[in-house]
Amino acid sequence: MDMIVECVPNFSEGRRPEVIKKIAAAASRYKRIKVLDVEWDRDHNRSLVTLVGDPKQMLDAVFRMIRVATRLIDMEKHLGEHPRIGATDVVPFIPVSGLTMDQCVRMAKTLGRWVGRELKIPVYLYEAAATRSDRVNLADVRQGQYESLKEEIKTNPQRKPDFGPARMHPTAGAIVIGARKFLIAYNVNLDTKNVDIAKKIARTVREKDGGFLAVKAMGFEIKDKGYTQVSMNLCDYEKTNMGEVFEKIKEEAKKRRVKVINSEIYGLVPLEVLVDLIQKSLQSPDFKKEQILETKIWE
Amino acid sequence: MDMIVECVPNFSEGRRPEVIKKIAAAASRYKRIKVLDVEWDRDHNRSLVTLVGDPKQMLDAVFRMIRVATRLIDMEKHLGEHPRIGATDVVPFIPVSGLTMDQCVRMAKTLGRWVGRELKIPVYLYEAAATRSDRVNLADVRQGQYESLKEEIKTNPQRKPDFGPARMHPTAGAIVIGARKFLIAYNVNLDTKNVDIAKKIARTVREKDGGFLAVKAMGFEIKDKGYTQVSMNLCDYEKTNMGEVFEKIKEEAKKRRVKVINSEIYGLVPLEVLVDLIQKSLQSPDFKKEQILETKIWE
Repeated sequence: MDMIVECVPNFSEGRRPEVIKKIAAAASRYKRIKVLDVEWDRDHNRSLVTLVGDPKQMLDAVFRMIRVATRLIDMEKHLGEHPRIGATDVVPFIPVSGLTMDQCVRMAKTLGRWVGRELKIPVYLYEAAATRSDRVNLADVRQGQYESLKEEIKTNPQRKPDFGPARMHPTAGAIVIGARKFLIAYNVNLDTKNVDIAKKIARTVREKDGGFLAVKAMGFEIKDKGYTQVSMNLCDYEKTNMGEVFEKIKEEAKKRRVKVINSEIYGLVPLEVLVDLIQKSLQSPDFKKEQILETKIWE
Repeated sequence: MDMIVECVPNFSEGRRPEVIKKIAAAASRYKRIKVLDVEWDRDHNRSLVTLVGDPKQMLDAVFRMIRVATRLIDMEKHLGEHPRIGATDVVPFIPVSGLTMDQCVRMAKTLGRWVGRELKIPVYLYEAAATRSDRVNLADVRQGQYESLKEEIKTNPQRKPDFGPARMHPTAGAIVIGARKFLIAYNVNLDTKNVDIAKKIARTVREKDGGFLAVKAMGFEIKDKGYTQVSMNLCDYEKTNMGEVFEKIKEEAKKRRVKVINSEIYGLVPLEVLVDLIQKSLQSPDFKKEQILETKIWE
């Protein structure tokens, strides 16, 4: 398969398994789409479906899921802890292999236009697809949630959607659609029970305290294992990959006479992330994904 | 594809393209086998075919190639610079994905028995498949080459083959079949024209001078680029992978006030090599190939 895009639509339904199943089933009929995961949370009353596959089929698959969610979820009756503005709440497209962020932005816009026109649902573009700086952050777009947006969308020109009507869909509300980089969940475990050390080291690596670009980090105690952890999100592996962060944490731990126990990559990562890591850690910028033997068979 | 084996049969033909083509064509009819590369050398009068794919089809494909080579190559007329004992000279099986070295040893033995019985060609097992310590090294098995072995095979019990008759095939000679690890060709380039530095650093990393296990290394001058190179073969990445060698060379270069320009991975590498590298360099022993997103699609 040449091009692989990931999409993780979020739906405002976490309590009725039959509804979640029907939404996921709308994607599973596509041959070149794989449903990797379906998660839901009763308290948040929210579900996430992780899809990967062919970009063209992805647009069709996600559109069908949105249509099913629009039919089966009524925002007028929805309650849950997690912020949301619609039945299908957020739809991010993430480049995995063979396509660029720009192509994912175009996918977001194509889907947005389609949903606005056919389903009469207002669509806001966010992150890399955002058309205004105050819509880059998801939290800003969802401000006030479904309940407030219902009024504001009609009266406040700042909240006019990018596609679709400037009024909420009577049951499905509105949708945020966009494109973002793949996010790596990466933890480094420290051989100390002193959580202050983990917190201090987290501060040295995270962007907001002058550390690495696109890195979010927190220090935690992992009580049942008797150690502490620097838990990170690497939000743009091209800016900062795991190797650089790992070396820095090792160095900072050493200064404090603490050993690094190990590190953990959580969940799935695109092959491109590993190729980038090898290019950087071996100073081997010409190393290419195509040099991986398996790609000759999988192609 | 679950299991991937590599096989690189060597044939004593490097001058008649039509013969080489016919040999390679015998493998290309198999759906689950991919012919990655066909190389030949006129001076050596020798060719190499690189195949990857399904183990079961691999045995059939290689057997057919041997049968074609047996029909089309006459060792009585063969001249070339490279040591050889037969029309099909060497057949190594290399584990790439989802199968063990033991399984490759079994493949070597299955093929050897088959070739001995059906084609009446004597077969020697080498490397991981060797049945005697004096047959581990290919050079030892090929000692004296086709011309001497023709007599010795009949008279010297030390040279009795593992399979097939104890006399050479009248035109195809004998075959060496075995199993070995994947070999990584890896170079590190140094920002100095002084080749002595590259040679000295090569000595610090190679096994025979007390360096890393399973590492062969030499120092070269790369004249047209104006730098020098430590050129290596990593013969067992589980014992020594690229990361460790790269760090050591960087350190040795620094001692001599020389900068490392970059490093180069030559040709193809199995994904497993990269996974092993990441496990070691990030101290992340639990990282698994199955965490690579693409494997979910390729499977």
